[in-house]
Amino acid sequence: MEKLWRKNYLNIEPYTAGEQPKTDDIIKLNANENPYPPSYEVYKTIAEFEANDMRKYPLSDSAPLRAAIAEHCSNLYGARLTPDNIFVGNGSDDVLAAAFRAFFNSDKPVMFPDITYSFYPVWCELMKIPFVTVPVDDKFMINPEDYAPENGGVVIANPNAPTSIGMGLDSIRRILDLNQDCIVIVDEAYVDFGGESAVKLLSEYENLLVTQTFSKSRSMAGMRIAMAYGSTELISMLNAVKDSYNSYPLDRLAIATGIASVGDEEYLEAITSMIIATREKTAAALRKLGFDVPQSSTNFLFVQHKTLTAKRIFEYTREKGIYIRYWDKPRINNRLRITIGTNIEMSKLIAALEELIAAECK
Amino acid sequence: MEKLWRKNYLNIEPYTAGEQPKTDDIIKLNANENPYPPSYEVYKTIAEFEANDMRKYPLSDSAPLRAAIAEHCSNLYGARLTPDNIFVGNGSDDVLAAAFRAFFNSDKPVMFPDITYSFYPVWCELMKIPFVTVPVDDKFMINPEDYAPENGGVVIANPNAPTSIGMGLDSIRRILDLNQDCIVIVDEAYVDFGGESAVKLLSEYENLLVTQTFSKSRSMAGMRIAMAYGSTELISMLNAVKDSYNSYPLDRLAIATGIASVGDEEYLEAITSMIIATREKTAAALRKLGFDVPQSSTNFLFVQHKTLTAKRIFEYTREKGIYIRYWDKPRINNRLRITIGTNIEMSKLIAALEELIAAECK
Repeated sequence: MEKLWRKNYLNIEPYTAGEQPKTDDIIKLNANENPYPPSYEVYKTIAEFEANDMRKYPLSDSAPLRAAIAEHCSNLYGARLTPDNIFVGNGSDDVLAAAFRAFFNSDKPVMFPDITYSFYPVWCELMKIPFVTVPVDDKFMINPEDYAPENGGVVIANPNAPTSIGMGLDSIRRILDLNQDCIVIVDEAYVDFGGESAVKLLSEYENLLVTQTFSKSRSMAGMRIAMAYGSTELISMLNAVKDSYNSYPLDRLAIATGIASVGDEEYLEAITSMIIATREKTAAALRKLGFDVPQSSTNFLFVQHKTLTAKRIFEYTREKGIYIRYWDKPRINNRLRITIGTNIEMSKLIAALEELIAAECK
Repeated sequence: MEKLWRKNYLNIEPYTAGEQPKTDDIIKLNANENPYPPSYEVYKTIAEFEANDMRKYPLSDSAPLRAAIAEHCSNLYGARLTPDNIFVGNGSDDVLAAAFRAFFNSDKPVMFPDITYSFYPVWCELMKIPFVTVPVDDKFMINPEDYAPENGGVVIANPNAPTSIGMGLDSIRRILDLNQDCIVIVDEAYVDFGGESAVKLLSEYENLLVTQTFSKSRSMAGMRIAMAYGSTELISMLNAVKDSYNSYPLDRLAIATGIASVGDEEYLEAITSMIIATREKTAAALRKLGFDVPQSSTNFLFVQHKTLTAKRIFEYTREKGIYIRYWDKPRINNRLRITIGTNIEMSKLIAALEELIAAECK
């Protein structure tokens, strides 16, 4: 018998989860995770956490974390922000999804690059937001002039993923100047690895929303914390959406460890510098081996070999216990995304690639 | 100048947050929080947590927590469930919102009681789901026969909030028999305080989804963990919605502490028994003072005094540093919701009420 209740299902494909490595001796360079631990302040905060407090709801406005982030922004970008300029959520996906819902309610399409974070079209489909993708050029560059047509909003990941390429603030400014009648979201998940933050532009553009995350530079992917910066008006809209959906997205430990991490600016500087140095060393070694490696402003590289296919390299390194990322998608199916790990991990990757090239490129 | 980007805002009222007490010497009986700490296993898990793991994403499917919950269900309800019958999310609001999105896509209205959890109509409005509310009777009872009209889904909180009243499984079964062509959600946030769980009915009704939370009986409101139980088909739909919105709703500490809590069934039994005993004692004392107190199956009471107004009692106890809940809403604006705290806290409340009644009821 036909079950009629199935007709009320949301029209969505059940998702098949990606493979999780079953052993610990894998070199995991496929999720853009940070190879270094979080700040020692985070360790201390967990060890000293008063578990009895867990019986109580967290502060739904996460006020102390927002205050800590506002202060950090002033130090880092010289931007004078208050907690009312900061929204926090359960990872970038939660923050960006709230922003899509709050700000993309036009009949005109939202615009974003064709090669960028894969969740943008997914959220548009889920929320029935019309969208168009704008091709990046052959070098994966975003051209600000392409964002001139009338639209319902713009989303730019800067630096972009999976391309690793950062745009200067002059280009972001041009996109903002071309888009004064919609909300422009700049997704800065990777900005701490050498990007230039649009937080500095907030005082000039009321329709700008900038998002960042604790998952990459702060080594806290496992804790699910992200933030958005914007005018008090935009932030109050985001809070209204949050409070109509899930009032307490950050648990008490996320708030406490987030504050601990934000306070340790020196450690952030130290580990991002290490990762940048390893990245440049790795990029040079890869170029020597015949890879095209665009200049990265992130904690990963987006590479293509002159003769070996991406698929072959992906399969070979996988056999060697080194996981990197490959997508069988138009325009990027001969590229690999390689997360920057420790120096030792990257040396092992380079050694494996040397072996493969010696064996297969005559 | 008119800012055109404002026209793309979601049509939603910015929310004004409720008052948070500024001091610690408040007796907080207004949020249905548990007065007892979480299981000692939760303390140990936090203390022993390997913070270095935080640099990595959590398992997006929270598999070990779902396995632990499935096992607990088998022990508690004799229902044979597997992890594929369990969905977990960032608190009940996250789980219920995902279920509304996944299952309520009909043109016919979703039905729920007029007096029930206040987020149901909020989610319907946010997601543009048509709905009708069904009046509970003068004793706040839900009549299963009222849910016979054709509809796009049914949501029943059992026990109901803020009424505190539980329905027997025979009534839930009647609602399910009347609604074989839509999804029926039974929200069991308070079930561990004396309700009867519909988890037992899952083997009979493929269109039933049951939700529960760690926030009340498990003393973990601050950790944001909730779950849904259903057929593997319903659970795979919920996972598809999650994976299209926010793939990692539970952080590593939430997964770890959730497992620790679920494993300690003895402690759950001990603290819920204590709260039930305090509830019955408090209900008897309140009835003696002239309150109408419906039989509660929850960790709170929903009371009305024979002469004093709810507003007066609310203001008086507040002055005395005891926070209880009052809503200025139709049908319930002369009722108060009082969370069950410790025996000492409830004695202080009763003493304050005795004083007030002695002074103002001649």
